[in-house]
Amino acid sequence: MSAALIEQLRTRLGAAQVLTEGDLSAWELDWRRRWRGKALAVVRPGNTAEVAAVVRACAATGVSIVPQGGNTGLVGGGVPDTSGSQVLLSLQRMHHVRAVDTANLTMTVDAGCVLQAVQQAAHDAGLLFPLSLAAEGSCTIGGNLATNAGGTQVLRWGNARDLCLGLEVVTAQGEIWEGLSGLRKDNTGYDLRDLFIGSEGTLGVITAATLKLAPQPAASTTALAGCATLDDCVALLKLAQRRLGAGLTGFEVMGRVALDLVAQHFPALPRPLPAAPWTVLLELNDTDSEAAARNRFETLLADALDAGTVQDAVVAESIAQARALWHLRESIPLAQAEEGLNIKHDISLPVSRIPAFCAHTDALLEQHIPGVRLVNFGHLGDGNLHYNVQAPAGADGARFLAEHEHAVNTLVFDALLPHGGSFSAEHGIGQLKRDELAARKSPVALRLMRAIKAALDPQGLMNPGRVI
Amino acid sequence: MSAALIEQLRTRLGAAQVLTEGDLSAWELDWRRRWRGKALAVVRPGNTAEVAAVVRACAATGVSIVPQGGNTGLVGGGVPDTSGSQVLLSLQRMHHVRAVDTANLTMTVDAGCVLQAVQQAAHDAGLLFPLSLAAEGSCTIGGNLATNAGGTQVLRWGNARDLCLGLEVVTAQGEIWEGLSGLRKDNTGYDLRDLFIGSEGTLGVITAATLKLAPQPAASTTALAGCATLDDCVALLKLAQRRLGAGLTGFEVMGRVALDLVAQHFPALPRPLPAAPWTVLLELNDTDSEAAARNRFETLLADALDAGTVQDAVVAESIAQARALWHLRESIPLAQAEEGLNIKHDISLPVSRIPAFCAHTDALLEQHIPGVRLVNFGHLGDGNLHYNVQAPAGADGARFLAEHEHAVNTLVFDALLPHGGSFSAEHGIGQLKRDELAARKSPVALRLMRAIKAALDPQGLMNPGRVI
Repeated sequence: MSAALIEQLRTRLGAAQVLTEGDLSAWELDWRRRWRGKALAVVRPGNTAEVAAVVRACAATGVSIVPQGGNTGLVGGGVPDTSGSQVLLSLQRMHHVRAVDTANLTMTVDAGCVLQAVQQAAHDAGLLFPLSLAAEGSCTIGGNLATNAGGTQVLRWGNARDLCLGLEVVTAQGEIWEGLSGLRKDNTGYDLRDLFIGSEGTLGVITAATLKLAPQPAASTTALAGCATLDDCVALLKLAQRRLGAGLTGFEVMGRVALDLVAQHFPALPRPLPAAPWTVLLELNDTDSEAAARNRFETLLADALDAGTVQDAVVAESIAQARALWHLRESIPLAQAEEGLNIKHDISLPVSRIPAFCAHTDALLEQHIPGVRLVNFGHLGDGNLHYNVQAPAGADGARFLAEHEHAVNTLVFDALLPHGGSFSAEHGIGQLKRDELAARKSPVALRLMRAIKAALDPQGLMNPGRVI
Repeated sequence: MSAALIEQLRTRLGAAQVLTEGDLSAWELDWRRRWRGKALAVVRPGNTAEVAAVVRACAATGVSIVPQGGNTGLVGGGVPDTSGSQVLLSLQRMHHVRAVDTANLTMTVDAGCVLQAVQQAAHDAGLLFPLSLAAEGSCTIGGNLATNAGGTQVLRWGNARDLCLGLEVVTAQGEIWEGLSGLRKDNTGYDLRDLFIGSEGTLGVITAATLKLAPQPAASTTALAGCATLDDCVALLKLAQRRLGAGLTGFEVMGRVALDLVAQHFPALPRPLPAAPWTVLLELNDTDSEAAARNRFETLLADALDAGTVQDAVVAESIAQARALWHLRESIPLAQAEEGLNIKHDISLPVSRIPAFCAHTDALLEQHIPGVRLVNFGHLGDGNLHYNVQAPAGADGARFLAEHEHAVNTLVFDALLPHGGSFSAEHGIGQLKRDELAARKSPVALRLMRAIKAALDPQGLMNPGRVI
């Protein structure tokens, strides 16, 4: 049965695109090396018709499919299980920009386009595709949409969902839904687009997308501000939103422990402000000029200093300085890795609830594990914290994880509940949080989701064991 | 059976909230008087638990439900059919603002809140709820979400969908999905919110929503520009987007015939520019000041005049003048009604395709009906035109409609196809365009939609005969 399927796929796609031998770890192992699976075959279609043919052939033989883009996911959603019975469907060979429409501010691309290539194609057309995240050099736009990726520009531009106007999808039956669209308004029936976005390959395979573009900003600059409390950070956010409107494109927060780890492991990086309990990175896009942008920041921060909301502040004087400030922020996960294994959380809360949540949960964790280090940083403007828990100084990371991971997760996720928070803000569910989803979503939501899954994928062959 | 159901509803809700006698035309007749239905009863629950009780009682007896907000829809989605067997479920008694969270920039409201009351509550909190449309004095936010309403601020803020973070919904089984959420990032399973938004009451009843708010702009102003061609209008849009970024909150286009009708029927309204083939209304919000906003507009329009993109332009000198310019735009539908019955279209296209579509379709219509008048106006920035077709001067509107409506619709909708356009941009499907949906959406999209409908409403009792 399996041999016949593989033969059939080789005939349809060419033998070179159906891999069953040799080192397949580029597809079978996730990049953080947390999940290693074994595929029946790694299949690499070159166009949408071939994807549809693969899905039909698998459906006919009852073989399940795991779609994969750049294999940069964080929740084990894109690697096969260990059974050796699943087809790994890689979209990487579908990497063409199909069309750019500058007057409509849209671009249509294959799902396998690497995010950075999408950004570059927009840039080459004098435009901006604002989605930006750490993995942009290797993640694909199809994966970004399948997981509704977030990143550093969500405050201004929204998540991946908000940057997509239309999709082309191969359904679980192997039909092609031609939902590509350059329309900003289209109220003709149910919102299939948003149902596929964020469904992590469990309802169908995204093969192409029409994306929203924007004019490039005339100028962009960055500032850093030190705050005494998280309440001050929230007050600064509110002031910045009121003053800068849509010009405010980034508002990242970094706890002292996080920046201390960066200083410890990357001592060459400049640290332009004295250590503060909280450091905020602000980014501003301006339609006028660099000078105007800096001037706006300086006025804002002077007022915040006067009001006592901010203790210290610096505005980048050049693009190189602005990059260096972002580099500080981006070095936190790397510094954490240098320091040892840790328990990562990707949580979200209403912005207004973040100070109370952190005060309460920090204290609970300290009570539970004396000396524990909270490496708390993230996208405060979106209410999204990477609330990571690192072993006490000197303790062994692996042992810490083995002993505490489950209890710490439960403690943090339980603490989110009274504040209306979420246990997965931008990374999705995959395998990693499937049990949390089943345990923590309301029974009504779960019934609705299961009914949708059963309706669109009655055989249960699309990325089974993920999400729902 | 029906009598027992009515008795049961009266016991649960109070007799005063279950209406079966007297003049029920406020609920049974749409405001444009195109659809007059007959309900088994008009039921007015006062809270979500009562809505759930009504849905359960109807489900148990196999009686179908038509949810209704302000009864301002344009496609017959919210009035009962003529059978006398449907329950009309009015949300109007549920009109409380449940909570405003200024630090999170969110507000949670009952579905029956009138849009203007929502705007006012935001304003009272020093914030902005940007959704704005002609019916805002009587439409409800639940109806706005059920139909994914558009309006005049979509260019900057998106459709109703884009302004909603979470929903509370009574499912077809009469369960309550508590999906209210103040989160800007939450990747925990399928996007149920966006599935219910725009589903026009066919999948469940929206009973409350958490909405996104924004800081109020420091200043706002309006300008009018005359253009020789639609291509020039598109070029002006592109220039304005590049220069003004998110400051550009409105970009409306008005054809000469449309403004001539306004001048004819409302001669007292000032017409600040000489008649041009196309007149554009631009709105700008600014984070600085009125003076800065006017200055931005003046620079932009001076450059557009130099480039020949614009023939004439005027910037409002006061809030009163800005309102007067909007008043011109808003008077077009009224002037059309004065002139007589006409064939209305609510279409959308990629902005880049609008000039070619109009040139082609205008010519086809003139060929089909010599002397026909195109009252073409709308939200050019969103690619959304109200491409309305008025009888030749002096002809009888009713006869024109009877003779030509079907053929004109077919001609216009067929013409959209090669340009990737949509036959319903912001008004939805309801009863009016259900046949168009069945005929014009792809078979794959229809199969997906029908599968979802069957999965979530297997009895087919939620607003049957609408959408799908």
